[in-house]
Amino acid sequence: MLENNSRTELESLGEFGLIDLLTSHIKIHHTSTYKGVGDDAAVLKSSNAAKVVTTDMLLEGVHFDLSYFPLKHLGYKAIVVNLSDIYAMNATPKQVTISFGVSSKFSLEAIEELYSGMILACNRYEVDIVGGDTCASKQGLVISITAIGEADEKNIVYRDGAKVNDLLCVTGDLGGAYIGFQLLEREKRVFLSNPEIQPDLEGKDYIVERQLKPEARKDIIQLFQDKGIKPTSMIDISDGLSSEVMHLCAKSKVGMNVFEDKIPIDPQTYEMAREFNLDPTLTALSGGEDYELLFTIAQADYDKVKNNPDITIIGHVTDASEGVHLITKSGNKYALKAQGWKAF
Amino acid sequence: MLENNSRTELESLGEFGLIDLLTSHIKIHHTSTYKGVGDDAAVLKSSNAAKVVTTDMLLEGVHFDLSYFPLKHLGYKAIVVNLSDIYAMNATPKQVTISFGVSSKFSLEAIEELYSGMILACNRYEVDIVGGDTCASKQGLVISITAIGEADEKNIVYRDGAKVNDLLCVTGDLGGAYIGFQLLEREKRVFLSNPEIQPDLEGKDYIVERQLKPEARKDIIQLFQDKGIKPTSMIDISDGLSSEVMHLCAKSKVGMNVFEDKIPIDPQTYEMAREFNLDPTLTALSGGEDYELLFTIAQADYDKVKNNPDITIIGHVTDASEGVHLITKSGNKYALKAQGWKAF
Repeated sequence: MLENNSRTELESLGEFGLIDLLTSHIKIHHTSTYKGVGDDAAVLKSSNAAKVVTTDMLLEGVHFDLSYFPLKHLGYKAIVVNLSDIYAMNATPKQVTISFGVSSKFSLEAIEELYSGMILACNRYEVDIVGGDTCASKQGLVISITAIGEADEKNIVYRDGAKVNDLLCVTGDLGGAYIGFQLLEREKRVFLSNPEIQPDLEGKDYIVERQLKPEARKDIIQLFQDKGIKPTSMIDISDGLSSEVMHLCAKSKVGMNVFEDKIPIDPQTYEMAREFNLDPTLTALSGGEDYELLFTIAQADYDKVKNNPDITIIGHVTDASEGVHLITKSGNKYALKAQGWKAF
Repeated sequence: MLENNSRTELESLGEFGLIDLLTSHIKIHHTSTYKGVGDDAAVLKSSNAAKVVTTDMLLEGVHFDLSYFPLKHLGYKAIVVNLSDIYAMNATPKQVTISFGVSSKFSLEAIEELYSGMILACNRYEVDIVGGDTCASKQGLVISITAIGEADEKNIVYRDGAKVNDLLCVTGDLGGAYIGFQLLEREKRVFLSNPEIQPDLEGKDYIVERQLKPEARKDIIQLFQDKGIKPTSMIDISDGLSSEVMHLCAKSKVGMNVFEDKIPIDPQTYEMAREFNLDPTLTALSGGEDYELLFTIAQADYDKVKNNPDITIIGHVTDASEGVHLITKSGNKYALKAQGWKAF
């Protein structure tokens, strides 16, 4: 976006001008959003539903690389990763606040592009933008989003409810976002070493999109409602399957067995991992950013999920004393380890 | 804090270790905070009160200078500026989420110092820390806070309710935070040119504290309740009196007359402004960061505020056609101009 022909300096608008311009495109979806942008704070009407609140920060150079991350996609993803946390509580996102810091290297057109991605995601997921903060940054692009959702208190699913013998399930497939990231990084290196070589992403749409334009599993929350399923525990996969399994086990005070041959991996992810000499399973375990839902259900609910192409049963819950293990395709048993973020 | 004798690298803890350590000091004040830190999202119980939501971002080098801003004070201020927005709605803050990005130049001890200031403010204002995000930053310290408050819907005060003939009131005194900032900047320059000269802040406690450790006017919201006052419009003073007066006028579609001789300025602010060859009135009009409340009340409420030392009547509301003016001490009339942030 920075190479756009038209370039309006942010300076020429000032803070209030920028806010007015950006927020003029906001559409309100919910009557609970009583007052949105434009006062010291937004006002959400009282209701019988509990509120669910989550927040995420995204920093240039740490969470995203603008040399291949289109600003519109970045805006879209920034919203989606927060909504994913709300769905992971079995709740429905209703409002977001959006704050960002931008340096003078960004034109108004670039910021509008970023914001248009945010608005696109908010319209698609029917979420209201109710506030935010816009400020100058000396260091590049900084984004912070807070999402607020609603649910009947009795329907909220925590990380701590998994019970021995429950089934461990995951939505969609894993590892794609990480492999997409590896591919984009490789093409960037090629481009930097020889700018005449154009990125070769042909036939790689799926994994590139998993990285650049992930979706949150709104459909699964709807499915739970339609089928009368309440998972016993749930988390979304942002850091990788391994890390999230460990979280559920730690919070629920249980163990788990995860079967390698059950972990859903898309053929494109699989092939590309091989091309990078990466173990596809490890990609799923440690890659992260898939924004799929990992959850446990009682065995009695097995029939409700068994033929659903979006849900795969990948393991089961054991007693805490049995530990947390991956059972490999060859039948070996390895202790799973938590992956944290180790970016310092 | 970076010169602390004890220095633990953040790397040695990792993200989850850091979060566990920091959040172990959190105390929960409200039963409405059903689940705080530790899941994909926090859960707030349903209630008859409306929720009020605001968010603010603070960036190193833009909003604060760590060469003279103690990290504990910074943490305290970061919370207070958000609570101030909630009070400006005539609401009571109940929860906050805290996100920050830190680079490896910060030790664990430094981050604990920052966080201890946040916790101090939260305990003082009885606000629960319910979530957040912690990430590595390549660029310095980035803080983003979202505050959630509650109020009966009928008690919420917006910016758009000022009526012709209402009285314009302000709490406390103005300009001190800006003059404190000028003083700290001057002493920094002196110190940089000759490190043997220690900062001379003696007798300047008030203005230094106005900059480094502002308070939000929780007491005024309580006073409104006790006296049965509902302001017709309200805003907090973060950008300067001039800018906030313009906001109230624009939203309420009214004009205002502000009387220079009524604007409350502390003697220390006044003297120091003179020392800097700054007009004390201009300091109050354009300085900002005072976090006082600016509000309008019906004339019928005059008796309820007239003898209150914390509240000063500085003007009145006129028809929009009369414009927004400052009436100077010499009786001249100047059109007020909005001050935005022009930091790009």
